[in-house]
Amino acid sequence: MLQSQLFTKTRREDPKDEVAKNAKLLIRGGFIAKSLAGVYVLLPLGLRVLDKISQIIREEMNKIGGQELRLATLQDPAVWQASGRWSDEVVDNWFKTKLKNDTELGLGFTHEEPLAKLMIDHIQSYRDLPVYVYQIQTKFRNEVRAKSGILRGREFLMKDLYSFNVDQAGLDTFYEKAKVAYRRVFDRVGIGAQTFLTFASGGTFSKYSHEFQAICSAGEDIIYLSRDKEIAINDEVYRPEVLAELGLDEKELSKETAIEVGNIFKLGTKYAEALGLTYVNEAGERVSVVMGSYGLGVTRLFGTIAELCGTDTGINWPDNVAPFAIHLIMLGNDEVVTTKAKTIYEELSAKNIEVLFDDRVAGAGEKFGDADLIGIPHRLVISVKTLANNSVEWFNRGVGKTELVALDEVLNRAVNI
Amino acid sequence: MLQSQLFTKTRREDPKDEVAKNAKLLIRGGFIAKSLAGVYVLLPLGLRVLDKISQIIREEMNKIGGQELRLATLQDPAVWQASGRWSDEVVDNWFKTKLKNDTELGLGFTHEEPLAKLMIDHIQSYRDLPVYVYQIQTKFRNEVRAKSGILRGREFLMKDLYSFNVDQAGLDTFYEKAKVAYRRVFDRVGIGAQTFLTFASGGTFSKYSHEFQAICSAGEDIIYLSRDKEIAINDEVYRPEVLAELGLDEKELSKETAIEVGNIFKLGTKYAEALGLTYVNEAGERVSVVMGSYGLGVTRLFGTIAELCGTDTGINWPDNVAPFAIHLIMLGNDEVVTTKAKTIYEELSAKNIEVLFDDRVAGAGEKFGDADLIGIPHRLVISVKTLANNSVEWFNRGVGKTELVALDEVLNRAVNI
Repeated sequence: MLQSQLFTKTRREDPKDEVAKNAKLLIRGGFIAKSLAGVYVLLPLGLRVLDKISQIIREEMNKIGGQELRLATLQDPAVWQASGRWSDEVVDNWFKTKLKNDTELGLGFTHEEPLAKLMIDHIQSYRDLPVYVYQIQTKFRNEVRAKSGILRGREFLMKDLYSFNVDQAGLDTFYEKAKVAYRRVFDRVGIGAQTFLTFASGGTFSKYSHEFQAICSAGEDIIYLSRDKEIAINDEVYRPEVLAELGLDEKELSKETAIEVGNIFKLGTKYAEALGLTYVNEAGERVSVVMGSYGLGVTRLFGTIAELCGTDTGINWPDNVAPFAIHLIMLGNDEVVTTKAKTIYEELSAKNIEVLFDDRVAGAGEKFGDADLIGIPHRLVISVKTLANNSVEWFNRGVGKTELVALDEVLNRAVNI
Repeated sequence: MLQSQLFTKTRREDPKDEVAKNAKLLIRGGFIAKSLAGVYVLLPLGLRVLDKISQIIREEMNKIGGQELRLATLQDPAVWQASGRWSDEVVDNWFKTKLKNDTELGLGFTHEEPLAKLMIDHIQSYRDLPVYVYQIQTKFRNEVRAKSGILRGREFLMKDLYSFNVDQAGLDTFYEKAKVAYRRVFDRVGIGAQTFLTFASGGTFSKYSHEFQAICSAGEDIIYLSRDKEIAINDEVYRPEVLAELGLDEKELSKETAIEVGNIFKLGTKYAEALGLTYVNEAGERVSVVMGSYGLGVTRLFGTIAELCGTDTGINWPDNVAPFAIHLIMLGNDEVVTTKAKTIYEELSAKNIEVLFDDRVAGAGEKFGDADLIGIPHRLVISVKTLANNSVEWFNRGVGKTELVALDEVLNRAVNI
């Protein structure tokens, strides 16, 4: 893409109405814009990052047998009354609205109930199981405060997968697969090293649920981490008997602040029973389907990457989620430089390499400042000076290394990033 | 994809609570499910179709310079009060909700106002123009009645593009380009022959707006169509002076019922003035940006295709939007048939051809019935009988032709669909 065509402007100053690092950096780089507290617009650069994260998640969910669908935002009270979650006293973050005839509706904050109801039409026999479905969909949560940028929004993108099995053993097996898939997602988006499986409260459903917590000072959670064993315990269940059960000694644990980027839950038959989702087993008996629920905050992941990969000058995006692979910058308005830069841009684009080409008439300071804010992993500069060496200056932002690369090597190197 | 893994079930009977053909057929085929009147779930097959339609629209919007972003659903009253569109008396289909502190918010039904406001941060000078941005985003409209299936939903996907130009001439030029892009969209999704540019009321903005109307008995609009000249007049502006202006004679016009699948509007400076979106022109004067708005109902397009391509037995999807390219069906449980069918499935998949493989243990009647309901354009049957001829039976649903194709020709033919 030609940067001269990109309509968004970067900002040199932090926005005054933001306290969170992720929001400050993402707004300064032109990735997002604030609509309301906790409600953000995805600008073209931000949408590109979010789409890449979503696609990675989609691929990993498909690999474990997930089928993608999209449930509705507008929620029928009946299905939530069936499970007891319609009341604002039970669920304190509903957004509610009304039809013209005064019927109340909710805006979906999760989807166990409507999905259990939907499945009644599709699951009759044990032969119809297991089923794994997921969506990547906008959720609405009426948060009292929203000061964490896109880490805790009132409107945000979430991946929610739900499993439907014949029994607990089936659920247990899938649950372990889901853990592996989550692990792969965090590795691929570039925060694998900072993200740990964490034992948390299972609520009324099971002994534990599991969270994926990314160590980060912007987090709202406290966890106790064993780096050796690569597991952690959420503060909420940090008790001697839990330590004993997990074979952990408190001496090997460090207390950390972390962002909950995902959590997975064994639901058992609670929602199936509430909504009447049953199947006929091999013995001919009608029994309840066993469910699990697997959440992953897509927008929150976006914000977490910004927190973890952000510096004072911008965000060093991991390769797999960067808005572009290469930022090609031409300096000055020398005709040979311009022509050569355009040629490189066209050659790279022809190989389907995603390039943001800074073809603007602007000074080096502005161009470099913008490049830092946008944070594309590979910055290629072409100028009279680099051309004198028949080269471009290639800066690998991730490793912090700059070198001259011969013009006739650029394409080959770019396709092998 | 293996059909044995697809969790959705088809239905032989029409759903009792639907009157619209599109809803009946889409529910029977397992494309959508009803949540509430006017609110539908997109099941995996339906999501595939909708994603294909969206991708075609995205490509055509990108071609005319559109930059994709995603605005928020939750709407700040302030920007709508500025334009006078917050009141329920002015806009009768708002969904409204409230924050915990009782602040009222709206759910976006269109986005001129918030986008004009957003652009204030990005447009300062004539050098920043033109800008064309679009989104493919869920809209909410509080319809009193919702009986048309997905043709008029309370929650639906829409593509809305907005143009920002320095002057009317710039708008006029882009407006003509948008018409061409819309034309290409309708051609590519397979309803080009039935869809006509239609002169409609321009409201307070301009003499005319333009709609794209698809001739279909399920429509809510009446238009007067000249098939020769490929233009139509909406009933709302069907007057002698309009006929005269367009050089049309009423004798050459046929009265048709049609579905409005898109409409484009010259807005002028109304919203820019209301929100304070100005730029500094070459003469150094601060003037208002000239806007246009270009809507296209993605979900409605999905429903229109279902209406136009639907028969008593299912939907004959046009190639470009079909959920899969090929429906491979194996009949019986003969071992040679099974092995051969799997081989073909793997070979086609390896070429990135989208195949739904009916590997289920089921009778021929059930398999053919389902294939009709799902309506994938190319149905390939492999059975003991076809193998006796070293062939598969290849049914091209679009042209209604069945022939035997030699096994060693299948792959070559499939890549050239």
